[in-house]
Amino acid sequence: MSNTNLQLRSLITAGGELQLSLRQSQIPELAADEVLIRVLASPINPSDLGLLLGPADLSTARAGGTPDSPTLTAKIPPQSMNSVAQRIDQSMMVGNEGAGVVVKAGADAQKLLGKTVAALGGGMYAQYRVAKAAACLVLPEGTTPAEGASCFVNPLTALSMVETMRRENHTALVHTAAASNLGQMLNKICLKDGIALVNIVRSDEQAATLRAQGAEHVCNSTSSNFMQELTDAIATTGATLAFDAVGGGKLANQILICMEAAILRKSTSYNRYGSPVHKQVYAYGVLDTRPIEIDRSEVGMAWSVGGWLLTWFLEKIGPQATQKLRERVASELKTTFASHYTAEISLIEALQLEVIKAYNRRATGEKYLINPNKGEQ
Amino acid sequence: MSNTNLQLRSLITAGGELQLSLRQSQIPELAADEVLIRVLASPINPSDLGLLLGPADLSTARAGGTPDSPTLTAKIPPQSMNSVAQRIDQSMMVGNEGAGVVVKAGADAQKLLGKTVAALGGGMYAQYRVAKAAACLVLPEGTTPAEGASCFVNPLTALSMVETMRRENHTALVHTAAASNLGQMLNKICLKDGIALVNIVRSDEQAATLRAQGAEHVCNSTSSNFMQELTDAIATTGATLAFDAVGGGKLANQILICMEAAILRKSTSYNRYGSPVHKQVYAYGVLDTRPIEIDRSEVGMAWSVGGWLLTWFLEKIGPQATQKLRERVASELKTTFASHYTAEISLIEALQLEVIKAYNRRATGEKYLINPNKGEQ
Repeated sequence: MSNTNLQLRSLITAGGELQLSLRQSQIPELAADEVLIRVLASPINPSDLGLLLGPADLSTARAGGTPDSPTLTAKIPPQSMNSVAQRIDQSMMVGNEGAGVVVKAGADAQKLLGKTVAALGGGMYAQYRVAKAAACLVLPEGTTPAEGASCFVNPLTALSMVETMRRENHTALVHTAAASNLGQMLNKICLKDGIALVNIVRSDEQAATLRAQGAEHVCNSTSSNFMQELTDAIATTGATLAFDAVGGGKLANQILICMEAAILRKSTSYNRYGSPVHKQVYAYGVLDTRPIEIDRSEVGMAWSVGGWLLTWFLEKIGPQATQKLRERVASELKTTFASHYTAEISLIEALQLEVIKAYNRRATGEKYLINPNKGEQ
Repeated sequence: MSNTNLQLRSLITAGGELQLSLRQSQIPELAADEVLIRVLASPINPSDLGLLLGPADLSTARAGGTPDSPTLTAKIPPQSMNSVAQRIDQSMMVGNEGAGVVVKAGADAQKLLGKTVAALGGGMYAQYRVAKAAACLVLPEGTTPAEGASCFVNPLTALSMVETMRRENHTALVHTAAASNLGQMLNKICLKDGIALVNIVRSDEQAATLRAQGAEHVCNSTSSNFMQELTDAIATTGATLAFDAVGGGKLANQILICMEAAILRKSTSYNRYGSPVHKQVYAYGVLDTRPIEIDRSEVGMAWSVGGWLLTWFLEKIGPQATQKLRERVASELKTTFASHYTAEISLIEALQLEVIKAYNRRATGEKYLINPNKGEQ
């Protein structure tokens, strides 16, 4: 094998330009506890898009470079520069998670040689990635890199939503963009574990997908009777916790309003501050970048809307609890946590404007997989 | 004394009308552990206005009744009826807190007879109020009912903000509408206890008031340089917790943005999810009834905005911790927790439209006191 490595890089300049490129770099010597993974599959998650494209205006995008080493540049709107101030002029590696084959191993990590492993930690949109042996999850025999590529972000997020529910004393869940890859996993977990889940989707097709997978409570936010249907589903399930992938506009507010209405249905006395039952919405995604609007007039005072991030949640629960979640993922990788991909693309394809537009649509149920060694031996 | 009692009542009808009136009622027999308070002072707090006027449109208000028993009616906008569904056709007593003299006492409460006491629990806009002896706070010798009228809501709220800060591991505070009666108390507490407080006000006069009382950090939200000034003050104090009396529009968002910017000033590495330091805004008031708008692009993921209510907070910390706060209030009633009133009005005056408009302006630093026995012997 060659000693050079091709990495996808994202840079935002002080002048307000996003620059995507492929960079050749040397593969460093491995420490005793490190391995070198030949990356064969790495998904493009919404969280990756945030780092990859930032707030760039893709209508200004221009292709450059050569066929073998393409580049793409686009303008960052001036009002968005504040939000990326901390990354200006730093060439960022991209790709939260992925899987591949260990092709080289340090002295203490020889037993991983030849194994198919998954890893989390960034920089997976590269032909090769150095990783700590301890951070690698050895995939069960017979698992392909593509099958194991998404075994951290979505599976751990879905499991952590359920874990958050238990730790914060809720008994049922609401989830938005519920027909997403992640949403389908959450639905499977809840069905398996007997947890009531209210799925919010935006089309009848998405509703049908979830119902075909056994979902009992599915509400279409484009229905003219959405508020009534959501209140009914929340009243039936008793959900007081929602995980919201959308996070812009009025959806979080609608969920809080329906939760409060569902609780008040069972209440007989008036409290000017609303029900004392705490209603929580965690905005974990940014599918809608508009401001979140919270009109409190029908929500009462016992509510909270806040950000939620997998990494910080796992830090909070600690390594032992995290390991339990990881073990469950490994054991159900081809069932509960199976991912489906719209297309497999190379690093070069990942920089082509038409392809970027496709994976940046973030359409529910669509997900792209980068194979940095696509077409290579 | 007569056996009848005059109470201010607020009713919202199913037809969408607010009806304010004075109702004559019989004073019930006292249980052994009860006392009868002749109410001499009860403040009009923002929380009282919520119950008293609801979402009524005062431009539709009409006076009625007789000079001795006036009424006031006003329309509730149809879109606001949902928010009051639970109180329809229930005649509500009003007045969270107040003080007066115990004029009658049950067998087990004789030692309170003749004492000036303060009480919390609603229905204080009445000539007489029956209360449990255990719920009465005996005011220190030499304290007038007016001086003791506001010894629960504002003082306990201000102390509970500091208590929340400690329990949720923050070390400094931001407060909005900071020149209010409550804000001035909080400022005094923080100065006394050595806690850094960032005061947000809306005018130079308000800023001057607080500075004259020793406040170090005062930011005027109408300043053209507000965001910079607020970020500087937050960076100096390290505040990551805000109590927001306004709760509509962009102010909560501005506070979160400045907190994040202040934290990032000390950070060297870029994290696409922003700083992991949790930033909390509690919206405890509704001075601005518009929706709260949270644009997350400069806030990161470690944030939360939620409702906060004194009653529920005190329930959470329990009776012993609450009692400690009450004792501090009693001992500093004429200093830290002194209230100032714009005017003292009678129950009849409280129903006059011009007076309602005055106390409903909720102007910072203005507060009205109802004396239900004003002009009586």
